[in-house]
Amino acid sequence: MYPVAAREESVIYILDLFGTAVFAVTGALAAMRKKMDIFGVTVVATVTAVGGGTLRDLLLGRVPPFWVADPGYILAILFAAVATFLCARKMRHHMPQLLVADALGLAVFTVIGSKVAVAANTNPLIAAIMGVMTGALGGILRDVLCNEVPLILRREVYATASLGGALVYVAGTRLHLDQSTIVPLAMAVTLLTRLAAIKWRLSLPVAKEESGDGDA
Amino acid sequence: MYPVAAREESVIYILDLFGTAVFAVTGALAAMRKKMDIFGVTVVATVTAVGGGTLRDLLLGRVPPFWVADPGYILAILFAAVATFLCARKMRHHMPQLLVADALGLAVFTVIGSKVAVAANTNPLIAAIMGVMTGALGGILRDVLCNEVPLILRREVYATASLGGALVYVAGTRLHLDQSTIVPLAMAVTLLTRLAAIKWRLSLPVAKEESGDGDA
Amino acid sequence: MYPVAAREESVIYILDLFGTAVFAVTGALAAMRKKMDIFGVTVVATVTAVGGGTLRDLLLGRVPPFWVADPGYILAILFAAVATFLCARKMRHHMPQLLVADALGLAVFTVIGSKVAVAANTNPLIAAIMGVMTGALGGILRDVLCNEVPLILRREVYATASLGGALVYVAGTRLHLDQSTIVPLAMAVTLLTRLAAIKWRLSLPVAKEESGDGDA
Repeated sequence: MYPVAAREESVIYILDLFGTAVFAVTGALAAMRKKMDIFGVTVVATVTAVGGGTLRDLLLGRVPPFWVADPGYILAILFAAVATFLCARKMRHHMPQLLVADALGLAVFTVIGSKVAVAANTNPLIAAIMGVMTGALGGILRDVLCNEVPLILRREVYATASLGGALVYVAGTRLHLDQSTIVPLAMAVTLLTRLAAIKWRLSLPVAKEESGDGDA
Repeated sequence: MYPVAAREESVIYILDLFGTAVFAVTGALAAMRKKMDIFGVTVVATVTAVGGGTLRDLLLGRVPPFWVADPGYILAILFAAVATFLCARKMRHHMPQLLVADALGLAVFTVIGSKVAVAANTNPLIAAIMGVMTGALGGILRDVLCNEVPLILRREVYATASLGGALVYVAGTRLHLDQSTIVPLAMAVTLLTRLAAIKWRLSLPVAKEESGDGDA
Repeated sequence: MYPVAAREESVIYILDLFGTAVFAVTGALAAMRKKMDIFGVTVVATVTAVGGGTLRDLLLGRVPPFWVADPGYILAILFAAVATFLCARKMRHHMPQLLVADALGLAVFTVIGSKVAVAANTNPLIAAIMGVMTGALGGILRDVLCNEVPLILRREVYATASLGGALVYVAGTRLHLDQSTIVPLAMAVTLLTRLAAIKWRLSLPVAKEESGDGDA
């Protein structure tokens, strides 16, 4: 039993580093569109990649957070940020592949976030929120640093895809299903929802009436 | 004595949930003005409602923070956010009542924040700051997410009303007055200051000379 | 030996309060350019001055953070913010001196941040990041609150100067050099790099190709 669990852990760790690097690339590209210098690009890449997991860890009392305890994450980010800075033009030609990679990163981060929260004995609702936070907060902070209204909050089936996977993970755990079943299932839900949203340009409803400029 | 204290705790808890829901409504309305989708509306509602108390808890080492430990807060926020999303037009017609409810929420949050900080044995100055942070930070984060210079920082007697109540609470505690006296008194100071500011459109001074566009 | 170490501690503490006040002044000036009221000016001054050290302390599990434990920092900030509010015009005439003072504050914050992280037994890479975070995050948060793309992320040899000092501090510690050698040396590296950047208007490279408006 042990070797299987250990192998699963390794696969998740590798996927985690992969997701970290991909999120860093999307952060770096956003920073470059704002004409930031190499330092700014690295900062935005870092915040995009570790922002969600960091708040999750602080809220759950897991101190120091994952990337402070294991510098592998920062090394993956530095590599991704510098590579993006040097080859941004080339990367833009691979935008479809980058979107798929980003969807996979979202799926991995969501499941890891939910898993960590469940392991910390949080309420299932809170565990699902932690999953979504781990997946989506980095992108929100990226847009705040770039001085834009966060794209994820406007019209993307992005956090919703994350929420789907998080709920599947939490529900599966409540039903005492095996981790080796729940983890890939929850990841698949997030990944496929997100890919479907990209392919068919799905978006969530926005209220119609808002034409006035109130000042509440 | 115990039943009275317990009843007071219940009243404060109900007021706390009420304030949470009202803050969530103001967050949701701000998000809708920015054309956010239902997910974005919920995120901004949540940050507005729990942002201040969350930072307070992290700074005081109260981990996990209040809303992670008790999902009642998140449920109140989800209810408020969805209701606002569905009935925003109707809510805007009740803006005066919403402003009063928001002032009450500010009073409740301020006193709870000061109380928690005093209980954690902080310095009185820091306790007052924690009260103001609990009351006002959510609104600041809301405006940052909506990509605006925070209204509270520009020309509102909002945080000042919060500061008044926080100072009364801290001073009352130093004078060893009874909690059943200090809590309503401090809340009244914040509430009435804020209502007076709304009624007579009071605002704090802004320095006059700033016409240049320095670049420090 | 003890008296020397104690005297060094005192010197660092005084420099720390000095840096705190200077950072508060730069935050207050930025807030005033955005026409914030006296409360907003104080909030931005506070966030600029303690933002970096606060996140560092939360990440390293040092709770409560430095300014919650010692109200001297808040008093220095309040003094600086009110003085700036009252005499902003005069201060602007001393902008060159303010930039030098800010460079000294950056040097002090960087070394303190690295020192705290090394003392918490973090990896050297993480310790250097904590030094830069302590020095530069406050200025980033200041610009976010003022609704601007952070200047530090765009084209300033600011964080780079901080990074230089942090690396010297961390390397010196690894080489077991004496603190009384490393601290002034690391501070000098940051200070002189920053002053050179100001004098000769040095800036980091920005990637050239970014003319398109992608939407990753």
